[in-house]
Amino acid sequence: MRLSARNQVRARVVGVTEGEATANVELDASGVRMVASITVEAARELKLSEGREVVAVIKASDVMLAVPD
Amino acid sequence: MRLSARNQVRARVVGVTEGEATANVELDASGVRMVASITVEAARELKLSEGREVVAVIKASDVMLAVPD
Amino acid sequence: MRLSARNQVRARVVGVTEGEATANVELDASGVRMVASITVEAARELKLSEGREVVAVIKASDVMLAVPD
Amino acid sequence: MRLSARNQVRARVVGVTEGEATANVELDASGVRMVASITVEAARELKLSEGREVVAVIKASDVMLAVPD
Amino acid sequence: MRLSARNQVRARVVGVTEGEATANVELDASGVRMVASITVEAARELKLSEGREVVAVIKASDVMLAVPD
Amino acid sequence: MRLSARNQVRARVVGVTEGEATANVELDASGVRMVASITVEAARELKLSEGREVVAVIKASDVMLAVPD
Repeated sequence: MRLSARNQVRARVVGVTEGEATANVELDASGVRMVASITVEAARELKLSEGREVVAVIKASDVMLAVPD
Repeated sequence: MRLSARNQVRARVVGVTEGEATANVELDASGVRMVASITVEAARELKLSEGREVVAVIKASDVMLAVPD
Repeated sequence: MRLSARNQVRARVVGVTEGEATANVELDASGVRMVASITVEAARELKLSEGREVVAVIKASDVMLAVPD
Repeated sequence: MRLSARNQVRARVVGVTEGEATANVELDASGVRMVASITVEAARELKLSEGREVVAVIKASDVMLAVPD
Repeated sequence: MRLSARNQVRARVVGVTEGEATANVELDASGVRMVASITVEAARELKLSEGREVVAVIKASDVMLAVPD
Repeated sequence: MRLSARNQVRARVVGVTEGEATANVELDASGVRMVASITVEAARELKLSEGREVVAVIKASDVMLAVPD
């Protein structure tokens, strides 16, 4: 499957914090810490646990840019 | 300024494609290609051009995860 | 590839309106009209043109609900 | 009220999973399963429970497209 | 129609910049400048032009917070 | 730090509802009630509690517009 999303970043799951509805998945993307908030249902369906290789998928329209003053 | 966004990735501008309303900013984040779609107004205000150092800021709730079948 | 996104809706491309940066892709999802705004780059890479079968992928956190008064 | 959002899909609530902050609302949209993550506050204010008729509202810029390889 | 979105801000259209696909709508929300990027189709359908009274609708999950260092 | 996000609204924290993963932060923006859903981690890192002055940051592409019928 190919996706229109322009940002596809390889990462490894470091940890998963589950609430009732939402799970925060902490990731290591080649040394850069990232976090994905997904539904608990999805986290379990994809069997996300420490060490799992994933791809972080982000739409270009969801990327904001910051520059130093 | 500190941000609630959990994903803050250092990158360098590779190129900017401007439309009337939207600009697609191509980035190199330590060898990973990323793209941000922002308003043309913002791209000009932040003086984004090739070589500029930026931080790509992404909310955790905007990060989707994919795993191989 | 399996995605964490909870909303995956089969659809057929009806038309594509391209700007410089963004393409609006009109879809027919079993009789329901939908529109996706993606980068022009992505629309061309995925060879989106009338009749193409696609899946519209939407994160649960991007779905708002409305009810009649 | 008319909305700028291009995607407005009629659906019926199938179930609601509430956490402290977020509620995942499972929907049946003419046989297609969808899920909306909204605040618990909103879920209660809109009195969302099984059988309720709703409209799933999604901005075009939040729709990603996937095509088979 | 009632919406699950928690942020509904009254504003007045100040100007509209149209591209082929996207329109940036500049707003005055009680003296605060805001900008909405919507499809050109939506901007025309809602007849958005200078002086028009609108409501800016934003999901809670799309609001990021910043604090001074 | 300057941000590409076009919507930066000054506000004061009114209250924080924490779940396991997500915190809903209720804001008063010059008399307009707003709510931000962020990770609990971020809410604690930014020490968000009643009275704290913040800026609500929203991408233009996340602002939907509504007009009365």
